[in-house]
Amino acid sequence: MQITAKNIAQLIDGVVVGDPSAPISGPSKIEDGQPGTITFLANPKYKEYIYTTKASVVLVSSDFTPEKEINATLIKVENVYACLAILMEKFNSSLSIKSEIASTAVIDPTAIIKENVAIDDFVIIKPHVKIGQNTKIFGQVFIGDRVEIGQDVIIYPGVKIYHNCKIGDRCIIHANTVIGSDGFGFAKDDQGNFKKIPQTGNVVLENDVEIGSNTVIDRASMGSTIIKEGAKLDNLIQIAHNVTVGKNTAIAAQTGVAGSTTIGNECLIGGQVGMAGHISIADGALIQAQSGLASSIKEVNSKLYGSPAIEYQTYLKSYAYFKKLPEIVHQLRLIQSQIDNLKSNQ
Amino acid sequence: MQITAKNIAQLIDGVVVGDPSAPISGPSKIEDGQPGTITFLANPKYKEYIYTTKASVVLVSSDFTPEKEINATLIKVENVYACLAILMEKFNSSLSIKSEIASTAVIDPTAIIKENVAIDDFVIIKPHVKIGQNTKIFGQVFIGDRVEIGQDVIIYPGVKIYHNCKIGDRCIIHANTVIGSDGFGFAKDDQGNFKKIPQTGNVVLENDVEIGSNTVIDRASMGSTIIKEGAKLDNLIQIAHNVTVGKNTAIAAQTGVAGSTTIGNECLIGGQVGMAGHISIADGALIQAQSGLASSIKEVNSKLYGSPAIEYQTYLKSYAYFKKLPEIVHQLRLIQSQIDNLKSNQ
Amino acid sequence: MQITAKNIAQLIDGVVVGDPSAPISGPSKIEDGQPGTITFLANPKYKEYIYTTKASVVLVSSDFTPEKEINATLIKVENVYACLAILMEKFNSSLSIKSEIASTAVIDPTAIIKENVAIDDFVIIKPHVKIGQNTKIFGQVFIGDRVEIGQDVIIYPGVKIYHNCKIGDRCIIHANTVIGSDGFGFAKDDQGNFKKIPQTGNVVLENDVEIGSNTVIDRASMGSTIIKEGAKLDNLIQIAHNVTVGKNTAIAAQTGVAGSTTIGNECLIGGQVGMAGHISIADGALIQAQSGLASSIKEVNSKLYGSPAIEYQTYLKSYAYFKKLPEIVHQLRLIQSQIDNLKSNQ
Repeated sequence: MQITAKNIAQLIDGVVVGDPSAPISGPSKIEDGQPGTITFLANPKYKEYIYTTKASVVLVSSDFTPEKEINATLIKVENVYACLAILMEKFNSSLSIKSEIASTAVIDPTAIIKENVAIDDFVIIKPHVKIGQNTKIFGQVFIGDRVEIGQDVIIYPGVKIYHNCKIGDRCIIHANTVIGSDGFGFAKDDQGNFKKIPQTGNVVLENDVEIGSNTVIDRASMGSTIIKEGAKLDNLIQIAHNVTVGKNTAIAAQTGVAGSTTIGNECLIGGQVGMAGHISIADGALIQAQSGLASSIKEVNSKLYGSPAIEYQTYLKSYAYFKKLPEIVHQLRLIQSQIDNLKSNQ
Repeated sequence: MQITAKNIAQLIDGVVVGDPSAPISGPSKIEDGQPGTITFLANPKYKEYIYTTKASVVLVSSDFTPEKEINATLIKVENVYACLAILMEKFNSSLSIKSEIASTAVIDPTAIIKENVAIDDFVIIKPHVKIGQNTKIFGQVFIGDRVEIGQDVIIYPGVKIYHNCKIGDRCIIHANTVIGSDGFGFAKDDQGNFKKIPQTGNVVLENDVEIGSNTVIDRASMGSTIIKEGAKLDNLIQIAHNVTVGKNTAIAAQTGVAGSTTIGNECLIGGQVGMAGHISIADGALIQAQSGLASSIKEVNSKLYGSPAIEYQTYLKSYAYFKKLPEIVHQLRLIQSQIDNLKSNQ
Repeated sequence: MQITAKNIAQLIDGVVVGDPSAPISGPSKIEDGQPGTITFLANPKYKEYIYTTKASVVLVSSDFTPEKEINATLIKVENVYACLAILMEKFNSSLSIKSEIASTAVIDPTAIIKENVAIDDFVIIKPHVKIGQNTKIFGQVFIGDRVEIGQDVIIYPGVKIYHNCKIGDRCIIHANTVIGSDGFGFAKDDQGNFKKIPQTGNVVLENDVEIGSNTVIDRASMGSTIIKEGAKLDNLIQIAHNVTVGKNTAIAAQTGVAGSTTIGNECLIGGQVGMAGHISIADGALIQAQSGLASSIKEVNSKLYGSPAIEYQTYLKSYAYFKKLPEIVHQLRLIQSQIDNLKSNQ
């Protein structure tokens, strides 16, 4: 694919500043951009690179004003990231499988599979499964009894989906993720041994949900564990039984959410965050990485940090003094000796 | 399955308060209970729902006394969770495979497989493996050389068990968990490069152990990594080489235990806890989520929190003052100025 | 295999103190050593065991001087761990597959596979893959389009490698690890919905890299996510898009590194550490387990702890006072009352 700066600008409704005929064969990063590629400037941290990058074209925000000369051609747009997404899709050469059913797949005859579905080698599809049109299922995936999968879904290699779970349209699930394993529920019997509490519910992923690799979403003990429309979960995340993750909420890698907790819509949860069970987090919460949430957050758009998490700025201020604790204690001793002096002088 | 409140009460030795003929077709959660279902009240947080739930029957503790009118029929029992476990099993419709060996499984002829074993599609069983009766092995599982698996075991899809490991009777291992991969052991050679220390031991799961999804238990460098009888491990847990987890100990998701550490019996370990290597934790320890254990815990039934972890209440008290550090420092300044005043007045 | 202390000493250039004909059939741990085995003393914590161990032979440092009588034969060497590694390899009986291609593997005819490669059952190899000589690929592995794998590589069961990734010579990748899944990149569109930013780059593992089980290394959005020569990553680690991990750096389990961060050479990163995105860590850093790195580390050989991480000793000192905060606040009150006294006495 060989296109020009002008072609790109038309595609994303941008304004060219420089050579509209600059040729572009693919994307690159601004700090190691190559001639013939397009790059972008979105994070101000990378501003300096725009003056030295070898990339031929740079996507910038419409309010960007250069402070010195720039060799590259610029394309100015309203939303750099959104335009970048459109561009990258142009250059994307993703993992692909043919829209056919591999002869090695083992598919129960009661499964209902719509047109144009791709099923790769060594996939197992159990009885009464339903799969919508244009869905792609990569190799070595396991789909349990009565699972329902929507249309235009992509399920990457090695994913395991337990019985009765439901996957909405346009969902993407990355490799080796597990959907619908048993929640962690036990009761001690009279002899003090754990007895398993059967987990009879399921997992529901609504439309446009994306889940990373090696993540686990446990089935509800009763009812459903629900990941709502448009939510995005990164790799190695733990979602316990009966959790609800709100619409358009994004959760970074290695975060864990304990049982029956409800996370609101439009939240941004950092990596390695832990949330206690049976709490609820109001819409728009911004949780700093490694925080621990022990109780419910009632105010919308809260910004939190720490374990247990408190208001973000309060944590930073307290932590600044935490680092000075040896000094503070030293001061305390000085004060006491001054008092002792004053006393003896009285 | 259609049974009545009276049937249920007989099954779990409970006392009916209300309509003994109330019909029950399945379980539900108290906050979204449906007519014709049975629910339960165990966590006091949910007490309010008992007055509004639409569920026909509610399982309650024998010491429960209603504060206002309740529409549902009650069944009073000694231990709500234990009775619930019995009930849920009644309603359980789990992932199932036939007690036969799939034609696509690749099983070495030297493997010894007892009667009534189910082996699903694309399972690999290496030489000299032994599998006890009634055990179920789901699709795409890998069982390495000389692995021994007991009876009535369930191994969910995609589990990988390396050579020489031993799995006791009635164990359950959830999807994509790895048992017996190499411990993380390296020594620097003269050129400063890491040289791998071979990991020649194995992993032993004793009877009645349950392991969640995407968990990893590494083989011992020498000897065995041991998970003792009745221990329960959640999802995404890291157990390093030569660790021992005690009898009936439960570990929540995303906790990591470094090499050669020994955890006692009957411990409850929260999620995202980290434990240093070469330490030992006395029986009955209660470790709060996200704690970090840097040294051994010698006292039984210790309750700990923090990183490094300290006594639970002490951590909470100290953390309460941590949040007030800016205020404390401000007070310190006020005190100093008072002293300065006193001095100048002397 | 039956060899003597003398044979072993010759192999590792050690000096025998005791019976050179002591027979050795395998390795054991010093605290539960059995007659006829060889064990070692490297960690001083275990020193006491050398006087009671039943092992026939103990590997010790050349500067070790016994404080009382020892029954075992000693072999004195310069570097105990390095010699142990050589010995363990002698006794190692690892997971093995034949150097042949299983009839059940599905290999695209365009793949180029060199001599003496082992490919186990149910492996999927997509178009234009290249695999070097002597490489072993265990069962149920997925190798995406155009992946290049070096020679003498071991890929354990269930590993999934997405398209275009590159694996160097002598790399080892443990079970169910995912290499090259999409980085976590989304931009909000005008309706406030997340739009996926295509991840067009790849992952490069240089030579002699070892990766644990259930770890995830995401592909770069553009360019490469790079794990440099000799680096060792443990289980359940998250490496985000465009990260670089330096040469001979070791990372313990459950650590997560956010996007575009660069870790230097020869760093030792503890378990459950979190690193923010777009930062860089200088060579030789020593990061304590559970730390959180929020900003770049510029000084080489830094030792850090805490979240956000600060200098190691400073953290320990501050934490020592953190534990005494209730006491410090009490002292503050006493001081105030003394001042009040002084004031009223003036």
